[in-house]
Amino acid sequence: MRPVITAFQDSPDEGRGLARDMRVRWAFEEVGVAYDVWLLTFAQMGQAPHRAIQPFGQIPTYQEGGITLFESGAIVLHIAQSHTGLLPDEAAERADALSWLFAALNTIEPPIVEREQAGYLESDRPWHTERLPLLDSAIRRRLDDLARHLGDGPWLGAEFTAADLMMVTVLRRLEGTGLLRHYPTLADYIARGEARPAYRRAFRDQRAVFEARRG
Amino acid sequence: MRPVITAFQDSPDEGRGLARDMRVRWAFEEVGVAYDVWLLTFAQMGQAPHRAIQPFGQIPTYQEGGITLFESGAIVLHIAQSHTGLLPDEAAERADALSWLFAALNTIEPPIVEREQAGYLESDRPWHTERLPLLDSAIRRRLDDLARHLGDGPWLGAEFTAADLMMVTVLRRLEGTGLLRHYPTLADYIARGEARPAYRRAFRDQRAVFEARRG
Repeated sequence: MRPVITAFQDSPDEGRGLARDMRVRWAFEEVGVAYDVWLLTFAQMGQAPHRAIQPFGQIPTYQEGGITLFESGAIVLHIAQSHTGLLPDEAAERADALSWLFAALNTIEPPIVEREQAGYLESDRPWHTERLPLLDSAIRRRLDDLARHLGDGPWLGAEFTAADLMMVTVLRRLEGTGLLRHYPTLADYIARGEARPAYRRAFRDQRAVFEARRG
Repeated sequence: MRPVITAFQDSPDEGRGLARDMRVRWAFEEVGVAYDVWLLTFAQMGQAPHRAIQPFGQIPTYQEGGITLFESGAIVLHIAQSHTGLLPDEAAERADALSWLFAALNTIEPPIVEREQAGYLESDRPWHTERLPLLDSAIRRRLDDLARHLGDGPWLGAEFTAADLMMVTVLRRLEGTGLLRHYPTLADYIARGEARPAYRRAFRDQRAVFEARRG
């Protein structure tokens, strides 16, 4: 029995791998676990069968045997803790990876998502241009600290972990904002993640969903 | 050797238990582990010794033996996975608690923090009053789904877990906004958390820091 995850049938990212199933696909590829994907329309995401396993009507979810998970962070951590390849064996390094996994989701991602959502919700308001520098400055404060920690190192810790997987997918959301221009080491870090064979397989598979729909 | 955590010497919440060390204190009390607290001034939070263990200059952190953690989510999960009392034994229930722990931090908390920060950063701007309903509506969309899941049940799953601990501390940030008035079952849920002996001990201990400073 392969695990089954959910993803958008029509992803708003148009095959750019920014939807959160990408994190789970990448994690499966890193640990070498085959999985199936259940594609959902926006209508299905809001309906009872999906809501029963995802109370907020979002993707991705994870089902395997009697186990169900939602939230990309929970799913990636579950995969990382159930298989080898995404967390160090040594206790201190493992604790560090856990901290950085949460930091990617709770310290770095929120101001990035806030900026994205402002683009959808407020770009027609006269004050949007006044607000954008505040949003950018909140993001840059986090990126300054992140870049300082990363230095010239290849990964957040001694080796690639689930925390890097998460951080790279979070930082990729900044593409097109121009903010990464000021952070060459972070741009290199993203590129290093994207060059991993597991990332490339995951990216190809999510992209195939978009290509198939476009026909 | 007791674990050592960090907390604000002068907490901006003035003893109301909203700072994120409260989550860690509560977790320690639930599992019955004694701990020490290293109080930090705002100046110390930004300086090298603390930055070396918390790259974003925040509290709380956790140190025990050779292990260091930061991010309240990582610390609470580490405590929950290292002791009994905060996660169910059964695999499906344990996976569910993990999902809800992340949901508290990544789905419920971000719009709540966004509203808080708008209060600090923008309340003098003419468009703040126009933006507030957008912020409230983002929070209410999440609370609607959360309240639907919770129903009349006491906790998110069959028993109290680390996910409830996290969710209650996240929802407490809404105090004073008036938003909880529309959600009596969520207000009851918060009260149920606050009534736990472990919560009360943790609250008393963080409050004592504020009382001692006030003199």
